Amino acid sequence: MTPDIAPIEWTGDSLRLLDQTLLPARVEYRDITDVDDLVDAIKRLVVRGAPALGVAGALGVVVALRQGEREGWDAATLDAAITRIREARPTAVNLAAGVDRVRSLAEKGTDAVLAEALAVLDEDVQGNHAIGRHGADWLSTRLGAKPLRLLTHCNAGALATAGWGTALGVVRELHTRNLIDTVYANETRPLLQGSRLTAWELHQLGIPYYVQPDSAAAGTILRGHVDAAIVGADRIAANGDTANKVGTLAVALACAAAGIPFLVAAPWSTIDLSTPDGEHIPIEQRSPAEILANGPASVTPEGARAHNPAFDVTPARLITALITETGPLILADGQTPARAR
Amino acid sequence: MTPDIAPIEWTGDSLRLLDQTLLPARVEYRDITDVDDLVDAIKRLVVRGAPALGVAGALGVVVALRQGEREGWDAATLDAAITRIREARPTAVNLAAGVDRVRSLAEKGTDAVLAEALAVLDEDVQGNHAIGRHGADWLSTRLGAKPLRLLTHCNAGALATAGWGTALGVVRELHTRNLIDTVYANETRPLLQGSRLTAWELHQLGIPYYVQPDSAAAGTILRGHVDAAIVGADRIAANGDTANKVGTLAVALACAAAGIPFLVAAPWSTIDLSTPDGEHIPIEQRSPAEILANGPASVTPEGARAHNPAFDVTPARLITALITETGPLILADGQTPARAR
Repeated sequence: MTPDIAPIEWTGDSLRLLDQTLLPARVEYRDITDVDDLVDAIKRLVVRGAPALGVAGALGVVVALRQGEREGWDAATLDAAITRIREARPTAVNLAAGVDRVRSLAEKGTDAVLAEALAVLDEDVQGNHAIGRHGADWLSTRLGAKPLRLLTHCNAGALATAGWGTALGVVRELHTRNLIDTVYANETRPLLQGSRLTAWELHQLGIPYYVQPDSAAAGTILRGHVDAAIVGADRIAANGDTANKVGTLAVALACAAAGIPFLVAAPWSTIDLSTPDGEHIPIEQRSPAEILANGPASVTPEGARAHNPAFDVTPARLITALITETGPLILADGQTPARAR
Repeated sequence: MTPDIAPIEWTGDSLRLLDQTLLPARVEYRDITDVDDLVDAIKRLVVRGAPALGVAGALGVVVALRQGEREGWDAATLDAAITRIREARPTAVNLAAGVDRVRSLAEKGTDAVLAEALAVLDEDVQGNHAIGRHGADWLSTRLGAKPLRLLTHCNAGALATAGWGTALGVVRELHTRNLIDTVYANETRPLLQGSRLTAWELHQLGIPYYVQPDSAAAGTILRGHVDAAIVGADRIAANGDTANKVGTLAVALACAAAGIPFLVAAPWSTIDLSTPDGEHIPIEQRSPAEILANGPASVTPEGARAHNPAFDVTPARLITALITETGPLILADGQTPARAR
């Protein structure tokens, strides 16, 4: 049986997060009842992945409402707290969208907000299963019904969503059809979501995999070891340009050079039609310390500067297909989210 | 004054290596008088970089001859010891070439071998200065005499050579002409030659730099932050295909997509005319532990497999120019080492 990996749940009293900073060494949960703790958890990537952030945003409004009731906040304090959650990270559109979807229900009471937030969670899991089926169908049709060698970057698995996963959801669906040979998981510097999280999920699922340095991906692809690459997304613009974990662009360039499919798997909630193209997606710069130190030890000279963008933007022309819960959009053929809506 | 960085020297009694596994935390030297120690030092990357390995190979024959004299080796034992040095790492042609160049002089005595090995060292330093001038001239002619924003991968500095450096030799020459704005140094997973060694050299030289994850390079280049990329080489085939530190290929693909020059800087000693093309260059696979652990801690699940090639091959068509000590070869225009020789 496929084990259930639930990175985010509502316990009845609190928002329960599987602490992804501790994986795979320890499986620990954080029960969040406080906005400060939630904002900290989002910034430190205790919870991460665009769809999971959408759910965290929606349930985060419930956390804020309950804390406000407990502590007697006025409307302005509550509003500021919700906005802090909304803006804890800038790139994934799901976080702000998750907050906005439930926020307007606050005047109907906390229970109405909670019901809507749980609907966000449920829709995400259902959508991911649909993405898995559409992606598996598309790859099998395009590449033939043979076991595939796939490459992925970062973690777009159950841990990045409310459950099941997007890019890894496609891998899981293929695995249930006996159509996975191997997955190459890029380690994903600096925070190692690939070697820590994707490897952990693949291990749980019994799917064969290799971990490799991000820098090895281009050679692995151009030497013919990979049939297709599939990744998630943090924000997709109206024209199909896609922000995802830094390093995605290099994978897409290598796939284009090798002539193999490069797929993005993401729900419609990650598509932001109000962002016209990749130029308009804000890119989060993270702390230089993630690059300049290795654990507690500095690896660089005193005064070293770091360039540490968390994301890059892959232009739509490099994306063979975008797999959503409603089916594939063939961006390479000129389809776009804007025209499909 | 430019400080002198000497990673490899002959002391009169021993081969002295600056231990690059300890940089930048500690500057320590190893005095090598024993073949086992030398082979270990080469495998562990105490000394690294194709030109430096060429010098280590040549002086290594002296180490073997002296140890043989001391310990009364027969010819077969001596021969086997020299062959172990020659084959300690497979990709850089300089190591075998350095050994082979001086080995045949053994019958003339150890002093003749030493003199030739010191000539290898001296030629390398002189050649690197010439590479620096040719590369600086080419970039200034092509891009205009303005301060440049360059990107490099791994370390092709003084530490990778007998002194001065190849790719970083070009950067140093430009810096003396006040034509460097910034250098983006890829950190170079898994062994961090970029953040540990290139950053250390640039810091010593007072050249402004950023360290970035390898995976950030494509975005940095395609967002227009870089005027050209320049790297070293471990082996260049007769047709110009170039093996260099894994991750180089992704930089070259991004430069091609952005339409900016991608340069390889290397001496003729790194060109192997007996290797017809990149398909024929052996690629060293290194220990999975370099990927699966972070310091003493495992980051991946029990039983995880790693794909850890030390190098990749960049096809000649992606290399705008190869800068050698005799001048540039414009590979993108169809020039090749084979035809230039």
